[in-house]
Amino acid sequence: MRSRGSFAADRHGGRTSYGGDVKPAVVLLSGGLDSATCLAIANDEGFDVFAMSFRYGQRHTFELDAAGAVVEAIGAVEHRVVDIDLGAFGGSSLLGDGDIPKARTDDEIGDGIPSTYVPARNTIFLSYALAWAEVLGANDIFIGVNALDYSGYPDCRPEFIEAFQATANAGTRTGTEGDGYRIRTPLIDLTKAQIVERGTSLGVDYAMTVTCYDATADGACGECDACILRRQGFEQAGVDDPTRYR
Amino acid sequence: MRSRGSFAADRHGGRTSYGGDVKPAVVLLSGGLDSATCLAIANDEGFDVFAMSFRYGQRHTFELDAAGAVVEAIGAVEHRVVDIDLGAFGGSSLLGDGDIPKARTDDEIGDGIPSTYVPARNTIFLSYALAWAEVLGANDIFIGVNALDYSGYPDCRPEFIEAFQATANAGTRTGTEGDGYRIRTPLIDLTKAQIVERGTSLGVDYAMTVTCYDATADGACGECDACILRRQGFEQAGVDDPTRYR
Repeated sequence: MRSRGSFAADRHGGRTSYGGDVKPAVVLLSGGLDSATCLAIANDEGFDVFAMSFRYGQRHTFELDAAGAVVEAIGAVEHRVVDIDLGAFGGSSLLGDGDIPKARTDDEIGDGIPSTYVPARNTIFLSYALAWAEVLGANDIFIGVNALDYSGYPDCRPEFIEAFQATANAGTRTGTEGDGYRIRTPLIDLTKAQIVERGTSLGVDYAMTVTCYDATADGACGECDACILRRQGFEQAGVDDPTRYR
Repeated sequence: MRSRGSFAADRHGGRTSYGGDVKPAVVLLSGGLDSATCLAIANDEGFDVFAMSFRYGQRHTFELDAAGAVVEAIGAVEHRVVDIDLGAFGGSSLLGDGDIPKARTDDEIGDGIPSTYVPARNTIFLSYALAWAEVLGANDIFIGVNALDYSGYPDCRPEFIEAFQATANAGTRTGTEGDGYRIRTPLIDLTKAQIVERGTSLGVDYAMTVTCYDATADGACGECDACILRRQGFEQAGVDDPTRYR
């Protein structure tokens, strides 16, 4: 972990903001391929990165171990893992309700919202990132959503991101009295292959990332939508796939 | 508690939605005067109400006891109290950072964002309500924000609510494939006196609500912004103030 800035109390009562030579940014980090690349990009842009992950009742907590390893390798000022109980609501095969779809074709993956969709997940994740950004005094929040080779989740699309940014700027101190927020989505227009190329050029070791919706200690399933898209990305980028499949 | 509808698995994998003779709605309930009135209004409109409260590190957990009492008195199909750790971020006198301002004049209360502002609080609350609504199959989410006699929080203004509604409709299954969400704010244009009048006409017993930012077992402080606005509301409505001040 690096530490370049420092914290100081500011004029707003007990509020503390982060003051350093470079600007802070909050980066949402799942431990998968996309968010690891996003973390590397934020670092490359010179931000002091505050990485945020969630333990939200997902089947595959292996990705949280991956998130920790990614932070160690790529760097961040701080990494917080926030416990939230989305599993209490249910409504997703990723939270244990029903089976995770396997071995679907590209057409099937592209058709509609799959059962792995977690209701309001990115809205909740971005809301927590916004709260942290507000306290840190960060204006930039990075999220590794991708609207091309993606799984059909509505909360990965540009119109969702734009709407959330407007919400952030309408509902916060920084949005109404300060410089405002930018929800940064550097991967949104990239193919999975382009993401792999970008991350590889930045030195991301994808062997430590976990993308699979159904990962176990023995490795990735190789058959869920996330595995299929990831595998295709490496193939199309001409990069050796370091994923450990079981 | 009433129970009029029933739950059933629907076509979306393991997702379960609520099906009853009347429509479900999620109501955010703090246990204060405004949200108790909001709960009564949602019930009066004929919704099957699912009330949601948060244990978020606030100093005044007395309001959660109040929320439970309000649900018992007014009615709801279910009441969930969700644990979230906003205190981990700090940034608010309401979360223990700094002193809660006392005995401020109306001009002081109306001037800027106070130290009791909790970063991104309503964004996070609404995000959780959205997740629950998505699983229940509810299209309506009630929040008792008020833009007239309020404490200067940016996330209580109509422009924030409109932006969040757009976010909800861009980022969810119901927003993109279904009938969409309405963020319902029946109090937003009312004075505190009008809110008291409305709730009183619906039979709300305000004695069981807790509004004070600094409540203790001995009662409300009577001097914080919330107490001042509440007391003025009862005075202007010509309704006896049942608040127990210490």
